[in-house]
Amino acid sequence: MAFYNTEDMDRWERFYRANFINSLTGFKSVSLIGTTNANGQNNLGIFSSIVHLGSNPPLIGYINRPIESAAHTLENIQSTGVYTINHIQSQFVQQAHQTSAKYSKEISEFEEVGLTPEFELNCIAPFVRESDIKYALSLEEIIPIQLNRTFLVIGKITGIIIHQDIVSDDGFIHLEKANSICSNGIDAYYNTDFIDRFEYAKPGKPTQIIK
Amino acid sequence: MAFYNTEDMDRWERFYRANFINSLTGFKSVSLIGTTNANGQNNLGIFSSIVHLGSNPPLIGYINRPIESAAHTLENIQSTGVYTINHIQSQFVQQAHQTSAKYSKEISEFEEVGLTPEFELNCIAPFVRESDIKYALSLEEIIPIQLNRTFLVIGKITGIIIHQDIVSDDGFIHLEKANSICSNGIDAYYNTDFIDRFEYAKPGKPTQIIK
Repeated sequence: MAFYNTEDMDRWERFYRANFINSLTGFKSVSLIGTTNANGQNNLGIFSSIVHLGSNPPLIGYINRPIESAAHTLENIQSTGVYTINHIQSQFVQQAHQTSAKYSKEISEFEEVGLTPEFELNCIAPFVRESDIKYALSLEEIIPIQLNRTFLVIGKITGIIIHQDIVSDDGFIHLEKANSICSNGIDAYYNTDFIDRFEYAKPGKPTQIIK
Repeated sequence: MAFYNTEDMDRWERFYRANFINSLTGFKSVSLIGTTNANGQNNLGIFSSIVHLGSNPPLIGYINRPIESAAHTLENIQSTGVYTINHIQSQFVQQAHQTSAKYSKEISEFEEVGLTPEFELNCIAPFVRESDIKYALSLEEIIPIQLNRTFLVIGKITGIIIHQDIVSDDGFIHLEKANSICSNGIDAYYNTDFIDRFEYAKPGKPTQIIK
């Protein structure tokens, strides 16, 4: 095993460090966030920092980078109060990655990368038609993280679009059956292989696989 | 496709809703957090809400549930200021899941589930010996999320233990080569299959695969 301390990390070249630390935190939930502005100009961006905050109410967070490096999505959410989160399936991973290019504000990433905006559930923010699992959110709170000038953006789920045949009887969603992917680091994408589901764990009781 | 709005979600049975919303947010970074208290009593818990906040400084967040449902890890972090995050490899997924049982405070989950505490890098919080990718953190900030009484706990990486042979020349870590897993929902675990890495995306430039 290799051991690194703070002094070692401080010596790392900038891109080496970014790749290393971004991978170190493990596989990530990667999705496309769809927004629109007051003029109906659509925006689509890829985000790999989506985090489940709670189910009741259904609250989801994502981390927005400092405003000077990633302004459009956050500005649109602040302006309209709504956004969509769309799973990335392996069929369109290349288009999804391309949305990370720094397009100017008046450009729709949908058109540039070849994905299709879709309007459903009375949400003015665009969904991604090609995505098989997607949901709409209303903005609840933006919490500034002073330490590195990022933001925790919290929304409440107001609508869901999904193929019902991948949802189990107990509500669990077999994401792998929709080919939803996860990411690693800044630029790597992965399919997944189901291992097992385990029953609710209790002290003194052996861990049981859900059949 | 099936469409659900807020009224539909409000009608869902409690566990159906928890499973559904927990899966909807996509695959998760799942790891074991190791802590100790002032008396040297070790604690180990499984967390699936680890989020990368930035690489320079190297800041990592995780969501701690309301204090009455998940007190021990947060109390120990507040008391000692340090903790470890340990990737879960498929070889010990069952033991890792079992740490989610509500053991009382004076019990070490390490002993109960059969994992081994390991002390390295001058960190008083225990690492998991069986884990092949792990890092130590010092507490930076605890941000209360008023909306649902959870907490965003932010730490700075102070040390890393890893097999160097899974780290690429540019710092990217092939997590799949260590069998690190990801999770879905409350109780499902997955291996991963590498698809591709893509070059930094630029407007007007075709998306290129990193060979």
